[in-house]
Amino acid sequence: MSSDTLANLLIRCPDRPGIVAAISSFLFRRGANITDLDQHSTDDEPGTYFMRLELQTARLDVPLPELRSAFAAEVAAPFAMTWRLEAAQARKRVAVLVSRHDHALMELLWAWRRGDLAADVAAVVSNHPDLRGAVEGFGIPFHHVPNDRDRRAEAEREMLALLEGKVDLVVLARYMQIVSGEFVARFPDRIINIHHSFLPAFAGADPYRQAWQRGVKIVGATAHYVTADLDAGPIIEQDVARVSHRHAVEDLKRMGRELERRVLARAVKWHCEDRVIVHGNKTVVFS
Amino acid sequence: MSSDTLANLLIRCPDRPGIVAAISSFLFRRGANITDLDQHSTDDEPGTYFMRLELQTARLDVPLPELRSAFAAEVAAPFAMTWRLEAAQARKRVAVLVSRHDHALMELLWAWRRGDLAADVAAVVSNHPDLRGAVEGFGIPFHHVPNDRDRRAEAEREMLALLEGKVDLVVLARYMQIVSGEFVARFPDRIINIHHSFLPAFAGADPYRQAWQRGVKIVGATAHYVTADLDAGPIIEQDVARVSHRHAVEDLKRMGRELERRVLARAVKWHCEDRVIVHGNKTVVFS
Amino acid sequence: MSSDTLANLLIRCPDRPGIVAAISSFLFRRGANITDLDQHSTDDEPGTYFMRLELQTARLDVPLPELRSAFAAEVAAPFAMTWRLEAAQARKRVAVLVSRHDHALMELLWAWRRGDLAADVAAVVSNHPDLRGAVEGFGIPFHHVPNDRDRRAEAEREMLALLEGKVDLVVLARYMQIVSGEFVARFPDRIINIHHSFLPAFAGADPYRQAWQRGVKIVGATAHYVTADLDAGPIIEQDVARVSHRHAVEDLKRMGRELERRVLARAVKWHCEDRVIVHGNKTVVFS
Amino acid sequence: MSSDTLANLLIRCPDRPGIVAAISSFLFRRGANITDLDQHSTDDEPGTYFMRLELQTARLDVPLPELRSAFAAEVAAPFAMTWRLEAAQARKRVAVLVSRHDHALMELLWAWRRGDLAADVAAVVSNHPDLRGAVEGFGIPFHHVPNDRDRRAEAEREMLALLEGKVDLVVLARYMQIVSGEFVARFPDRIINIHHSFLPAFAGADPYRQAWQRGVKIVGATAHYVTADLDAGPIIEQDVARVSHRHAVEDLKRMGRELERRVLARAVKWHCEDRVIVHGNKTVVFS
Repeated sequence: MSSDTLANLLIRCPDRPGIVAAISSFLFRRGANITDLDQHSTDDEPGTYFMRLELQTARLDVPLPELRSAFAAEVAAPFAMTWRLEAAQARKRVAVLVSRHDHALMELLWAWRRGDLAADVAAVVSNHPDLRGAVEGFGIPFHHVPNDRDRRAEAEREMLALLEGKVDLVVLARYMQIVSGEFVARFPDRIINIHHSFLPAFAGADPYRQAWQRGVKIVGATAHYVTADLDAGPIIEQDVARVSHRHAVEDLKRMGRELERRVLARAVKWHCEDRVIVHGNKTVVFS
Repeated sequence: MSSDTLANLLIRCPDRPGIVAAISSFLFRRGANITDLDQHSTDDEPGTYFMRLELQTARLDVPLPELRSAFAAEVAAPFAMTWRLEAAQARKRVAVLVSRHDHALMELLWAWRRGDLAADVAAVVSNHPDLRGAVEGFGIPFHHVPNDRDRRAEAEREMLALLEGKVDLVVLARYMQIVSGEFVARFPDRIINIHHSFLPAFAGADPYRQAWQRGVKIVGATAHYVTADLDAGPIIEQDVARVSHRHAVEDLKRMGRELERRVLARAVKWHCEDRVIVHGNKTVVFS
Repeated sequence: MSSDTLANLLIRCPDRPGIVAAISSFLFRRGANITDLDQHSTDDEPGTYFMRLELQTARLDVPLPELRSAFAAEVAAPFAMTWRLEAAQARKRVAVLVSRHDHALMELLWAWRRGDLAADVAAVVSNHPDLRGAVEGFGIPFHHVPNDRDRRAEAEREMLALLEGKVDLVVLARYMQIVSGEFVARFPDRIINIHHSFLPAFAGADPYRQAWQRGVKIVGATAHYVTADLDAGPIIEQDVARVSHRHAVEDLKRMGRELERRVLARAVKWHCEDRVIVHGNKTVVFS
Repeated sequence: MSSDTLANLLIRCPDRPGIVAAISSFLFRRGANITDLDQHSTDDEPGTYFMRLELQTARLDVPLPELRSAFAAEVAAPFAMTWRLEAAQARKRVAVLVSRHDHALMELLWAWRRGDLAADVAAVVSNHPDLRGAVEGFGIPFHHVPNDRDRRAEAEREMLALLEGKVDLVVLARYMQIVSGEFVARFPDRIINIHHSFLPAFAGADPYRQAWQRGVKIVGATAHYVTADLDAGPIIEQDVARVSHRHAVEDLKRMGRELERRVLARAVKWHCEDRVIVHGNKTVVFS
């Protein structure tokens, strides 16, 4: 095996015997080798089956479209699968929406520049002009689209014109603006937000102040897919840090920035590596 | 300094200059040495000052009552302090209320037997007879007091007869019964409960199922003082563990038992070592 | 699928295409359903492939011996597999060797009593009589086998007479005695030790003192398989806790006891659930 | 109290009664208010006492030099103290030495730009020219000083000319070059290095490969003061991350970069806030 990963296969279907045999036999006959495999079945009745496969092939001449249509007919149809077969070299195009806070954005841009993020950052959009210089320094287009309660619809139209069909993922890196249900519907399971608390605790505004007032001993951050229901979308990743009575609200915000950077970077990385499957309001993360 | 710790001093008062000088000069004149000192001031205006001191003395003849009355007159009164001076060897008497789950109880009893808990477990009370053998094996009195919705008042009367004036701390180690506001009022800031979630997320019943349904990636447990307002009392300690889509509700419960044991044991230990000061609905923990 | 897990299949073989297809097709033809599957391939050339499968079957009449011989001929031989097919209900028999410290032993016994450890504790052996009462209170046989430098060989002969052929796993729960290479050779990859440091730091005696002297800010514990080379066997699990300048050696020991309990319990649990494959001086843990 | 913190006082002296009383009475008489106080006494005999105080004053006319000379005479001399009284607004001047890896450097520069690092980054020195653009983009002078085994002495002379007397702290942010004992002697307890392992495990070269070969389940990073004895200086901070058999050496390096950034940033921040006291080969960190 000297070639690199060819493709990632993601599958969801009703659980029943024979799924692994059908998939692996199909791939073996086509000369594709399984280099990574992870699966999960839910416990409910009837269960749902999830799988993620990484494929390699020694024969460089296997055309992916042909593999797709054969898989559709021979395997996916009989098992009623929802599935995707993504070429590994097809890097996802990512847009980052940001307000004035730069920490989460910069974490992503630096990970991208270091080669730790297998994606292309196609654009940064902000409702403030402040970060133009920092973003353009990375050679990334920066778009200033003013946005507030009064011009929400207009701002979203402008953003859709910039992004729709041109990006595969929208990241809200502390965007601080409400995103409408209409906008969300254009990118189903393809908008990731970082919420600055351990959801579902402290949903809504100013969560670090809420946490301080409640006197919790641990604070957190949550990356989730955005749905029409604010702060209630499927959670991709969370992380936490210990705090004590010594930490004022400002300290929680500072510590929270560390958490937000880390949690959002992981969630975006996993999404871009096709490691996340959404199922209802939950996620299966094959990390 | 060859003697052991004599006493712990806990103080809360309005913040103003001169507090440390007044306390430390008083103790120095009385021949008491400060072996540990921790303090905290809140940022609000006017601030509140908190302090915890451990004292030693080379002269074994300093009577604590005399030290108390001198401190009251010379230091506490001028600074309007709320304070306690507790002899270190006066071990707190602890009662544990438990239902059928034994894990949190056993953690406390084993910590106590190993000498890791500076307290005396005076009694275990349960609404089920199941754990009598295990408890009496430790040489600790076990009381079976049936309790449910229909005989709440009667059960609490029986428990008060057993405990009031005889214990300094009541620990609800997964007691699974509502405790009335009247009962709580008899032990202000002296009832510790372990809640099996990361509060304030998932208050109420069956929190592990709630957590599973929300699809969180981290679960937690919370030890807090019990107030009339269920699951809303001052938090003493919390801890968390990572979970994934692979964990069913039963797995969360099993992992939660580990968290509950650890978090409750720490909270009880800190309370018994006079390390916790309640301030509104929050705690200052000098751990 | 209404039956429970029938068996766990563990495999190690040279990596090459077709392994998953061969195994899953074999099982599908025999009516066995895969309920859990985890795999790993090493990156070296040629790579090594590892797999763990959990099987169920709706037909209760599939005799495991017949399945084993068919698998050996049809799958294992062609792929040169090292493998085991273990009936899930065949609980491993565990012996615990212990000295005077009871914390790691008690953690295992309580996990076992609560049903959290899928194994049978067949015997506890100690070189001190102190823990007889506590152990027998669990209904578990206790054997006092004095052991020190002068009667090592004799003690090990006595222990072999008690254990060989009667237990599947030997756990050193702070046994504090050297175990000879001859003894180890009788239980290859079947002796688990808990070392009270973050190996490979602080191998040898009194690791908490070593850690304190070095001034580390984190201490740990390590569960590993015992090999002839002291403290150098394959690591199964590790965990850590934060410490500071405030912690004296005694504090590190106390905190270490918590770590040792947790780390050893996890390692023993995973071993008993057939989740660990040893590969050279490392482990693959399908947890 | 409307003024900000005036100064930080750090003290080390032989432990004996009356230290707190002497210091706090002195400050009270001078009109300085204690806004933060932390202390520590070692357990050995005779013990060593450490203290860190933050001071405020309502009278803006207290000259720090006068306070210093009064403190020296009235308090420090009688108690044989080693001490420093540092004006809080006197930000430390920091030089960062770096090779080609930019992650630890960028973490510091971004923390500095966001105002999370109470210091001035005075210069970046590298033995490679690669990072000039990135550094100068922050408005910070970049110096390329080639360095390898053959021109070590010359390189260090050049660096001393650039740094000595001009910076208060030298940070080795993955500098990858040996620093001579002579160079170290010019900055006693004022050079911080980030070592990419959990010291004392895996000292020396290529620690992530060492960790992978040993099969540890946790990897770490260590920030420490540099002494003449390589990788053996006083540890300031450590942190760890879980790994498994799935992680190749490259994965450990990637995860390690996260750890290195975080651990080094914390250590530098604490040093710059006068929170670290070196004592032998250990540190007291009042964080």
